[in-house]
Amino acid sequence: MKLPESTEWALHSVTALAQVPREAVSARRLAEHFGLPSPYLSKQLALLVRAGVLSASTGPRGGFRLARPASSITLLDVVEAVDGSADPYTCHEIRQQGRGAAPLEECVEPCLLAQKMRKAHLAWQGSLRAVVVSELVGSLSEEVVARTRASLIRAAG
Amino acid sequence: MKLPESTEWALHSVTALAQVPREAVSARRLAEHFGLPSPYLSKQLALLVRAGVLSASTGPRGGFRLARPASSITLLDVVEAVDGSADPYTCHEIRQQGRGAAPLEECVEPCLLAQKMRKAHLAWQGSLRAVVVSELVGSLSEEVVARTRASLIRAAG
Repeated sequence: MKLPESTEWALHSVTALAQVPREAVSARRLAEHFGLPSPYLSKQLALLVRAGVLSASTGPRGGFRLARPASSITLLDVVEAVDGSADPYTCHEIRQQGRGAAPLEECVEPCLLAQKMRKAHLAWQGSLRAVVVSELVGSLSEEVVARTRASLIRAAG
Repeated sequence: MKLPESTEWALHSVTALAQVPREAVSARRLAEHFGLPSPYLSKQLALLVRAGVLSASTGPRGGFRLARPASSITLLDVVEAVDGSADPYTCHEIRQQGRGAAPLEECVEPCLLAQKMRKAHLAWQGSLRAVVVSELVGSLSEEVVARTRASLIRAAG
């Protein structure tokens, strides 16, 4: 079970953009900020736009910004934007297969094992849903936020 | 994020073997019970042996059985036997990279995002660690257990 490496990129990008809430930041600028390959980061940012976490604007002053307040963006929103929301466990109903197959009438309820696996996934989701991006940004020192702002905001004029 | 399909096989195999605790069941017999390909199931059973969940014996009456009481085998033991125990999220310390890189002295503590991702994984693990195989078997009806036993235990003589 593995999350894509881009999960880290998405989490850091959203947290960085939350520190410059009124600024549109280009993918290239964000990529330089993190030392990441710009074309691949752009794809992840597009997924965050599709999920309603970021909004994108075009033009010379265009770029990405949060689509809504950081207090309403959870870590789960960000992770599922790049990895989807599917349960990592898939039940293929093997209880209904083979020589030991259970008759259909015994299989009205979901398989007990699938239920337990589902419960674990809900616990994972619940843990990430309990953290909003504004909470993380609020815990950063002034120095960190100042450095992020200096790196992401282009000079005026 | 995806668990291998063999996770389902391992969970069902261990739950089935817990219903015939004193019997050694061959991989072929287990495979027929579930309608699964025997060679591939054998590989998963070997992983369960390596993890100390099952024990294997050889010879004409050989096969697989639980290596310890079902009350001391958790769902997490079974899942991690086939999928490993690695955290699905990997932190590559991108906070220390690029133009916005944090100085080393600010990075003594693990990255806050990695901490939150870790907490979610611990919640998932905790949920699966809270369920022991004996609990699942105890909730099965007599009919289910009788059918499993009839399918898995070879006739005497």
